[in-house]
Amino acid sequence: MKLEKCITETNVNQNMLNIKYAVRGPILERAIQIERELEKGVKKPFERVVRANIGDCHALGQPPITFIRQVLALAACPALASSPDVPDDVKQRVKELLEDCTKGSVGSYSPSNGLNLVRRSVAEYLEARDGVAASLEDVYLGSGASDVIKAVLSLFVQDVDGKPPAVMIPIPQYPLFSGTLSELGLRQANYYLDEDNDWAIQVQELERSWREASRQCHVRALVVINPGNPTGQVLARENMEEIIKFAYDHELFILADEVYQENIISKPFHSFKKVAHALGEPYGGLPLASFATCSKGWAAECGLRAGFAEAVRLPRAGRAALAAARAVAQCPSVLGQCALHCVMKPPAPGEASHASFRLEAQAARRRLAARALSAHRAFNSIPGLSCNAIDGAMFAFPRIEIPERAQVVAAEAGLQPDEFYCLRLLEETGVCVVPGSGFGQRPGSFHFRTTILHPRAEFQYMLESVRRFHAAFRQSYS
Amino acid sequence: MKLEKCITETNVNQNMLNIKYAVRGPILERAIQIERELEKGVKKPFERVVRANIGDCHALGQPPITFIRQVLALAACPALASSPDVPDDVKQRVKELLEDCTKGSVGSYSPSNGLNLVRRSVAEYLEARDGVAASLEDVYLGSGASDVIKAVLSLFVQDVDGKPPAVMIPIPQYPLFSGTLSELGLRQANYYLDEDNDWAIQVQELERSWREASRQCHVRALVVINPGNPTGQVLARENMEEIIKFAYDHELFILADEVYQENIISKPFHSFKKVAHALGEPYGGLPLASFATCSKGWAAECGLRAGFAEAVRLPRAGRAALAAARAVAQCPSVLGQCALHCVMKPPAPGEASHASFRLEAQAARRRLAARALSAHRAFNSIPGLSCNAIDGAMFAFPRIEIPERAQVVAAEAGLQPDEFYCLRLLEETGVCVVPGSGFGQRPGSFHFRTTILHPRAEFQYMLESVRRFHAAFRQSYS
Repeated sequence: MKLEKCITETNVNQNMLNIKYAVRGPILERAIQIERELEKGVKKPFERVVRANIGDCHALGQPPITFIRQVLALAACPALASSPDVPDDVKQRVKELLEDCTKGSVGSYSPSNGLNLVRRSVAEYLEARDGVAASLEDVYLGSGASDVIKAVLSLFVQDVDGKPPAVMIPIPQYPLFSGTLSELGLRQANYYLDEDNDWAIQVQELERSWREASRQCHVRALVVINPGNPTGQVLARENMEEIIKFAYDHELFILADEVYQENIISKPFHSFKKVAHALGEPYGGLPLASFATCSKGWAAECGLRAGFAEAVRLPRAGRAALAAARAVAQCPSVLGQCALHCVMKPPAPGEASHASFRLEAQAARRRLAARALSAHRAFNSIPGLSCNAIDGAMFAFPRIEIPERAQVVAAEAGLQPDEFYCLRLLEETGVCVVPGSGFGQRPGSFHFRTTILHPRAEFQYMLESVRRFHAAFRQSYS
Repeated sequence: MKLEKCITETNVNQNMLNIKYAVRGPILERAIQIERELEKGVKKPFERVVRANIGDCHALGQPPITFIRQVLALAACPALASSPDVPDDVKQRVKELLEDCTKGSVGSYSPSNGLNLVRRSVAEYLEARDGVAASLEDVYLGSGASDVIKAVLSLFVQDVDGKPPAVMIPIPQYPLFSGTLSELGLRQANYYLDEDNDWAIQVQELERSWREASRQCHVRALVVINPGNPTGQVLARENMEEIIKFAYDHELFILADEVYQENIISKPFHSFKKVAHALGEPYGGLPLASFATCSKGWAAECGLRAGFAEAVRLPRAGRAALAAARAVAQCPSVLGQCALHCVMKPPAPGEASHASFRLEAQAARRRLAARALSAHRAFNSIPGLSCNAIDGAMFAFPRIEIPERAQVVAAEAGLQPDEFYCLRLLEETGVCVVPGSGFGQRPGSFHFRTTILHPRAEFQYMLESVRRFHAAFRQSYS
C-alpha cells in the first residue's frame, strides 16, 4: 500500500489547498528566512528585517492598555488582588466578570455565544455608538473577528434555485474574505473600489458585479469593509446609503467588516446598522451582520483572540444554524472575553484607572494619526508612487508604477509584477510588505500594503528604504 | 421584497442546520429554564438543578492549578512580577514565554500554528510519553482540541474516484464528531463499540462498517476515541494493534481523540502513535493525527481554549492545505498557549512550585478515581441500570432499561425513549444528564451520559436522585 494515498494533491480538500492568504504568505516566509540568515551572520545590504506585513500593533511596540492587562491578571489569578499595585476598579471589574463565570473560574466553559455579561456590554456599546436599540441575543462572541466572519459566511453555503451561491467582495479586499470564500466553496463576485475617488464604492460597479455573477450564481451576500483594509478609506454616509439600497434591491445580506471603527483619524464613523436604521422603511429592516474585535482599535490585543458579530434581524433559520455550529466549538476564550468587556466598557470618569486609560488610548490614537499623515505625504512624494488619503485602519496601500521591463522579468520568474517588486524590496532593503495582488487590484495597476504602526524612527527608516529602492528599481528596469 | 428571503429554512446552509450536539442541546436549554423558574420561586420537587451534561471540571468545583494561573497572570501583566507572592519558577517561566512572543506581548499574534516554544514543549512531552521521536513541525495548536479536530477532518472533504468521502466513527461517540462531519458534509460511517466487552472495538465490526459504507462512499479516515467518551473505556494494546492493521489494510487515516490521556485511573495509556511505531513496518508508517487539550487532565482549563494536534507523516498536500486554512484564522489564543506550555512542562522537582503543583494535580486525580469507582458501583446497584467499568475520561454511560409503555409514551411525544427518560429525570429531580441517543447507541439499547466530577456530597445526591427516579419511573410505566 502507498500510505501517502490517503492524502494527495488531488484528493485533499481542494478548497483548502486553493486558499491564498498573502498577509502570511511567501513574502513573510522569505522574510523569516532572511532573519535567520542575518542571525547566522550572512551579509546583506541591511542589518534587520522590517516586518510591515500585518497589522499587529503590540509586535510593533505599541504598549498594552494597563487596565486590560490588570483585569486579565486578576481574572486568571484572583489571589493577586491583595497586591497594592492593583486599583480598585480593576478588582471590581474582575469581581463582576468572575460572577458571570461558572463557579468563578475563567477555566469553566462559557455559553457558546459568550458570557452574558460580556454580550450585554457589547449591546450597550453598540446602543451608545448608534443610538439604535441593540440586544445581547444578536451578539456572537468569537476567537477574533475572523472566526465569526467565517461563521456568518458559512450560512450562505447552499445552492439557491439550482445556482451556486456567491458573495460580493470589494477589490482590493482583506484576504480573509477571499480565503474564507475559497475554503467554504462560495463563489467570489468582485466589485472594484474606485481608486480615483478615494476608494469609494460606485453603485454602477456594484450593479455590474452583481449582473455578471448572477449569470452563473445566486448572489447572496455583500461584504463591505469600512474603514477599508487595505485601502484605509472611510465611506461617506451618502455612499453607505446607496450601498444599503443596492443590497435591499437585490435581497443581499450585508456583512459589514467594521473592525477598524476605533482606528479613524478624522472623519466620523457611521455603522451600517445605524445608517440603515436612519434610512427608515423599507431599508431599516435589512438583515445584516457587523464585526468588531479587540485586535484593533486602541486595545490592539491581537493575541487574545476576541471579537464579535452583531447579527441583526437574522432570520430564525440563520439563528438556528449559527447556534448549532457555535455549540460544537464550545466557546471562545474566556480571558479573551474578559478583555473584550474592558474594551466595550473602559474605565469611566471618576474610576481609579480612568486617567491612565485615557492617556494610553490617546497615545495610540495620536500615533496612528501621525503615521497616517506622514505615510500619505511620503508615498506621494516618491516619483512613481501615489497614495490616497488614509482616513482609518492601520495601513497604507500606495500605487506603484512598475516599468514594463520589470513586468517581463517578473513574468519570466512566474511572479506577479508587484510580487516581484516586493520580493526585490525585501531582498535589497529588508522591508517586508505585501503585494497588492494579494488583496486584488484593477488589472494593470500595482500596489503594496504596509502597516503604518512602526515607531517613528523605524517608520522613517522604512519610508526612506522604499524611496531609495524605488528610484533604483525604476532606473534599472527603464 | 421579503427581507427574510435572504436566509430561510431551505436556503440556509443545510449542513449547519443538521448539526446535532446533545451536550449543549434541548435538555440543557430546559435545565437553564428550570434554573430561572427556581430563581423566580416556582415550586419544584427539588431545590436546585444538578448540571451533569458536560465535562467542565472547574464549573463543578475543581480548583485550578495555581502554577498555571500565576503564569497567566504574569504573562498578561508582567508588572505584577514584583509581588512577593509569586514564586521564582513562575517568573522564569513567564520570561521564557514572553521571549517567544513578538516584542514580549501576549497581545501580538503568534505564528499560525502556535509559538515555537510551546510547540517544542508539546513535542518534548510527546517524546517523553511515547519514547518515539516527535517534531514541533507536526504540532498544530488550536482553540481547544475541537478546533484542530475540525481542521484535520476538513482535509478529507473531497470526492475520491467519484464517490463522496466518509469517515468512520464509533457509536457511541462524542457528538463533536457527528456534528463536525455534518457541518463539513462528510458522510458518517458508524461502527458499534462492544458494550458486552467493555466497549472494545471488534475488527469484524470495523470491517462490516467499512464494507457497508464503501458501497456508496469512499471511506477516508477512522476516528478512535481513547479513553472513550462517553464510554470511559481504555483500549487494550492488542485491540489498538488490530485497529491499526485494519486502518493500514484499508488505507485509512487515523484520527485518535486522546484528549483524556491524563484522565486514566489504573490501566496504562498507549498512544496510537506509539503502538503503530512499535508494530514496525509496514504499520509504523501509517499517517495519523492525535489530539489533546488543556481542557481535560489535571489542568481542566476548558475556558482557556487550548489544545493541539500532532499530525505525523501527514503528506505534503495535507500540510499545505492545513497551513493555508490555519493562516487565515491567524492564531490560537496566546494566553491559552501559555497554559498549554505549563501543562506540557509542569514544574519539575526542585522548582519552587513543584510541591504545590504535585499536590493539586494528585488531588484532581484522586477525586476522579474515587468518583469513577463509586459511579460504577452505584449504577450497577440500581435495578434496571448497568454500567461498564470506568477506566478513564470523566463520564459514566450507564445502560438503562426503559419499559415498553414508556417507549410508547415517548414516541407519542415525538421523543426518543432515553430523551423522554432524561427529560422526566430533569423535571422530577433537577438532574441534567444527556440521553444516549445524543451519542448514538445500538438500536433498542438506551443510556445516558453523566459527568462524574461533582464534589462528593453533590455526587451522592445525584446518584440517589437517579436511584429514586428510576424506581418510580419503572413502576409507573410497568
